[in-house]
Amino acid sequence: MTLYLILAAGLLAVLYGFVTRAGLMKASTGTERMNEIAGAIQEGAKAYLNKQYKTIAIVGVVVAILLFILFRNWIAPVGFILGAVLSGAAGYIGMLVSVQANVRTTEASRSSLGAGLKVAFKAGAITGMLVAGLALLGIAGFFWLLTEALGISYDSRDVIDGLISLSLGASLISVFARLGGGIFTKGADVGGDLVGKVEAGIPEDDPRNPATIADNVGDNVGDCAGMAADLFETYVVTLAATMVLAAILFAGDALGVLRRDMMMLPLAIGGVCIVTSIIGTFFVKLSKGSENVMGALYKGLIVTGVLSAAAIACVIYVMLGFGEIRGSDTLANPAGFSGMDLLVCSVIGLLITGLIVMITEFYTGTKYRPVKSVAEASESGHGTNVIQGLAVSMEATAVPALIIIAGIIATYSLGGLFGIAIAVTAMLGVAGMIVALDAFGPVTDNAGGIAEMAELDPEVRNTTDALDAVGNTTKAVTKGYAIGSAGLGALVLFAAYTQDIAFFSAQPGNPLTGAVADFSLTNPYVVVGLLFGGLLPYLFGAWAMQSVGRAAASIVEEVRRQFKSDPGIMKGTSRPDYAKAVDLLTGAAIKEMIKPSLLPILSPIALFFAVQLVGGTENALASLGAMLMGVIVTGLFVALSMTAGGGAWDNAKKYIEDGNHGGKGSEAHKAAVTGDTVGDPYKDTAGPAVNPMIKITNIIAILLLAVLAH
Amino acid sequence: MTLYLILAAGLLAVLYGFVTRAGLMKASTGTERMNEIAGAIQEGAKAYLNKQYKTIAIVGVVVAILLFILFRNWIAPVGFILGAVLSGAAGYIGMLVSVQANVRTTEASRSSLGAGLKVAFKAGAITGMLVAGLALLGIAGFFWLLTEALGISYDSRDVIDGLISLSLGASLISVFARLGGGIFTKGADVGGDLVGKVEAGIPEDDPRNPATIADNVGDNVGDCAGMAADLFETYVVTLAATMVLAAILFAGDALGVLRRDMMMLPLAIGGVCIVTSIIGTFFVKLSKGSENVMGALYKGLIVTGVLSAAAIACVIYVMLGFGEIRGSDTLANPAGFSGMDLLVCSVIGLLITGLIVMITEFYTGTKYRPVKSVAEASESGHGTNVIQGLAVSMEATAVPALIIIAGIIATYSLGGLFGIAIAVTAMLGVAGMIVALDAFGPVTDNAGGIAEMAELDPEVRNTTDALDAVGNTTKAVTKGYAIGSAGLGALVLFAAYTQDIAFFSAQPGNPLTGAVADFSLTNPYVVVGLLFGGLLPYLFGAWAMQSVGRAAASIVEEVRRQFKSDPGIMKGTSRPDYAKAVDLLTGAAIKEMIKPSLLPILSPIALFFAVQLVGGTENALASLGAMLMGVIVTGLFVALSMTAGGGAWDNAKKYIEDGNHGGKGSEAHKAAVTGDTVGDPYKDTAGPAVNPMIKITNIIAILLLAVLAH
Repeated sequence: MTLYLILAAGLLAVLYGFVTRAGLMKASTGTERMNEIAGAIQEGAKAYLNKQYKTIAIVGVVVAILLFILFRNWIAPVGFILGAVLSGAAGYIGMLVSVQANVRTTEASRSSLGAGLKVAFKAGAITGMLVAGLALLGIAGFFWLLTEALGISYDSRDVIDGLISLSLGASLISVFARLGGGIFTKGADVGGDLVGKVEAGIPEDDPRNPATIADNVGDNVGDCAGMAADLFETYVVTLAATMVLAAILFAGDALGVLRRDMMMLPLAIGGVCIVTSIIGTFFVKLSKGSENVMGALYKGLIVTGVLSAAAIACVIYVMLGFGEIRGSDTLANPAGFSGMDLLVCSVIGLLITGLIVMITEFYTGTKYRPVKSVAEASESGHGTNVIQGLAVSMEATAVPALIIIAGIIATYSLGGLFGIAIAVTAMLGVAGMIVALDAFGPVTDNAGGIAEMAELDPEVRNTTDALDAVGNTTKAVTKGYAIGSAGLGALVLFAAYTQDIAFFSAQPGNPLTGAVADFSLTNPYVVVGLLFGGLLPYLFGAWAMQSVGRAAASIVEEVRRQFKSDPGIMKGTSRPDYAKAVDLLTGAAIKEMIKPSLLPILSPIALFFAVQLVGGTENALASLGAMLMGVIVTGLFVALSMTAGGGAWDNAKKYIEDGNHGGKGSEAHKAAVTGDTVGDPYKDTAGPAVNPMIKITNIIAILLLAVLAH
Repeated sequence: MTLYLILAAGLLAVLYGFVTRAGLMKASTGTERMNEIAGAIQEGAKAYLNKQYKTIAIVGVVVAILLFILFRNWIAPVGFILGAVLSGAAGYIGMLVSVQANVRTTEASRSSLGAGLKVAFKAGAITGMLVAGLALLGIAGFFWLLTEALGISYDSRDVIDGLISLSLGASLISVFARLGGGIFTKGADVGGDLVGKVEAGIPEDDPRNPATIADNVGDNVGDCAGMAADLFETYVVTLAATMVLAAILFAGDALGVLRRDMMMLPLAIGGVCIVTSIIGTFFVKLSKGSENVMGALYKGLIVTGVLSAAAIACVIYVMLGFGEIRGSDTLANPAGFSGMDLLVCSVIGLLITGLIVMITEFYTGTKYRPVKSVAEASESGHGTNVIQGLAVSMEATAVPALIIIAGIIATYSLGGLFGIAIAVTAMLGVAGMIVALDAFGPVTDNAGGIAEMAELDPEVRNTTDALDAVGNTTKAVTKGYAIGSAGLGALVLFAAYTQDIAFFSAQPGNPLTGAVADFSLTNPYVVVGLLFGGLLPYLFGAWAMQSVGRAAASIVEEVRRQFKSDPGIMKGTSRPDYAKAVDLLTGAAIKEMIKPSLLPILSPIALFFAVQLVGGTENALASLGAMLMGVIVTGLFVALSMTAGGGAWDNAKKYIEDGNHGGKGSEAHKAAVTGDTVGDPYKDTAGPAVNPMIKITNIIAILLLAVLAH
């Protein structure tokens, strides 16, 4: 019964998406020129995603076959394909909504800020609910199929392998989509700016710039589709890991009912939070006469948070009661815990979400010290702008890290490992709302581009810019939230890994039988693993940034070529060949995404076998486990600093464009443009891709164990 | 007897320093104008260091009194004072030599590149040998005092506490000197460039720029004195930690002789390597007709490396023999090891040094892909230069990390923890030579400044620039070497910490009696410690960079004020007030160095007591230990990326100034200047200060244990 209610919640989210979309489509799309531009963006975005998914499909088929060969059953490959397809669908539909909403947002912004916000946020909410809804449907549906329809036992390895394969599918799409989309969008953005703003001296999004459509396409395929795939993956991995942990922690026949309830609990939390997220979206609107866009978004978020806490309380009360839970005194948590403990853990998860939103707003919002300090540093030049931005980016990691540390301590004290897992589940429960806040960003960014290209009244651009500045913050929020949940969830994934070793070790007749890994920091192989894991985000980030550089350079050349071959473009008498730039970037982004994506896939395998050769299987297991922790430790800081720093740079530029420090065209503005350019690959390519990269490393490691034991 | 020979080696290094200095002083100091400028630099450097040491002295006296109160004996405070005073002396003398050698290098460069190299390298070698010599004298002398003169037993806690206090003294000076000097030098460099090159359009080191003397002062107090204090500290901490480890590992009455030999071994390795380093310095000279400065330095380094390996072989053969060492089968290394194993570990340490030099040269030398890629990216603008530089900086961490990983595995397999310790000892053994390579950098940088200010023939500046470009690489080398040794030595310091806990735990009647810390990654408090340690280098780096920004801003204002109040300065008719700029920076640097320096001192204490409150003493011990590892894991990558990236940016600028990509004054050059500015606080303030910061965190943690147990 519970499972059907959960599936219904997932369906409700999808339904909400379709109904809201129907409403959105009714909004006016403005002038013919606006439609023409929007059409070109749509076409480019579809063309790119089609090609990207085709490439990923090839990798996907290979992996699916490999899984079939390794596991010798259909569950793992089917789970994998389901995760991959749903993740792809979430991204694709998100992109479709986004490219239809952009022009409507431009049109709405012609009347008022509130109207623009309404359309853009609606589009974001559709994507948000689809991400959360499809993720919940996928995981709950697959779980239903395995346990209810096929009657496989809850604690069967097949169920666990299935859930992990589902996660792998989602992760694989996610890392490719984040990287490919990120390289596309920032290649276009950086390249277009360099040759347009700097060389030709024309403003951003000027229709004479041949890269301008590509730039707007990028917002949709990178910031929207890539982000959607990323959050889909985070949702699936978090819920799946919590379920796997429950299956392992509450094992033993006497606990059958408890195990079932504990495995169902994360799904139920996800279900009710979808409902509260939907309710929350209706509270996002500007107060009369107010221009506080961030305030409007906060209203929705707070409503969702408070309702979610209440809803989770109901779920826990009905499923487990608030009292001591019989059988919760597992090995990992000898003291046991009560239903109330789990509720407090959930509330802590929600609080962490709120705190991360607030701290990210502080570091990336135009109203606060950090962004103002970057803007001020722009007065003394390009160099000082970048130095201050880097300083802000590094500083911005401290408080989120402390929040995560406090979260680990508090939730672990209350409910052991499962307490941490439930807190992360609650965090991800409101993912629909968080994605809604984020996905509205690229829509407004596009809306501004369309306003510029269609040569609308500058007032319209000012309105979309005000929305876009908030979008820069909410974009950073989502990334901080995703990586924060990864940090908090690190122990959960690590626990899944160690408990798996214990499981296989206890089973006779496989290469891991009797293996005991020593995960103590006194074991040098653990230190080796930490350092090796630590280097992955650095190397991955370096490669991703270089990819953007190369993609941007190819765009610079193409734009220069077009300007040269047709002088009419600059005069405004002839149209540039937008499609050529889109094509070129499509090829570049897809080529460039391969190498960095393979790093987290191959590294765990390489480390394991290298250490096994020198130090034996037990040390290889220890080293691999430590690598999972190492990749989180540096990954957390790399990702947080990159995403916050990038947001701060972008908004420092916006702050100057609002007339501070000399405004547009001043020397300070030029310096701020440099900072913004540097921040682009930081915040939209390398930084956000670290999150799926961490996850995929973890999942590969867990799968490796299963493969070794088979 | 061995101890006296070791002390003699230390004295030899000091003697070498004085004799070479006498020779150096005989060299011509050029024109009157050159002497005038050099005099102003000397005066500023002395004034700054005097004030800096006075400030540190206040902190030092407080710490010494605290140590006396906590330990209730004179050994800890005396060790502390000795370490602090010697570290300060090494830095001060290095600065004195450097400010006397700069003008002589300028003069010598008027005749030839080879002559310039000779003078500059001599100056570097004096500093190098003084650093290594004083460090060895300090640690061996203090050890002699305690064990021989006063007859305290080798395994007494008093000896261990004394060695650790000595390390604390060196570390405290080091973190202040690195930060204060770094903020001074880069505040002057960044501020001077901004207002001079960018605003006023006058070249670097132009005598009309009021900040130009301060910039040159900075090279001496930051790059020379700060670096010397840093390497002094690394040397002392490494040898002391190895000795402490030996005292703990080879405990037990039956092992008395072995323990003595093992404690003496690191000192003996240090002693012979000083001799081989001195010999190596004589091989640093240009081949006839060659302009390969880096090649000349390599010759000296290779000679030192090969001779050191041979000398260490002799030491091990005489002290321990090459066969199995009776009693080496300690708890930490059940299989035991042979003398030959220790020799191989030493050779691995030397090889790691060589490999780090090579890889750093690859990432920062003007001849290779990374620097060329940054120069090429400058063509498309400021933003792409910075992006490529950041990408290079992150990429540059991968190979050194892999080298360290391989080093840990290899040396641990051979000789357990002690094998790792001996490898790091051998690495640091050749510190004299490495410091010599580094300290020649600021001398040539100054020489170029003097050539410019004294308006000598541009040919002279070209010569000093060629030397300076190599100096940028060797500067990066030393930092990579220092942080690399910290990474490799992390396990040694961690082992000292864990073995200390075991020691105090076994003793009755103290708060740590019976305490068993669980350092496994499955313990959430370990993860908390890793994350907390991980955030320290980020926050520390952020603060250091912001300090440079503020110091630079104050210089910009002062220079603007001078230009405004006396228009004769720009016309060249009146002299700017150089001293005012130096004064201003002195105040700013000393004020700014306090906050970041307190972070590594107070964090271990704060974490311990916070976790103790929530999770009890055992978890607090585990968390604190994990923090030591966390600070290494992110610190290694932060420091490596900052120092390599900064070097690459600096040399990309030099590469363009050599006539590539449009040469001086081109748009690419302007972009490269921006990158260089960004790289300044990266490579000369924040990055290098991470190494002493890691060390001080470790030492405070170990001292905290001793204090808790007293």
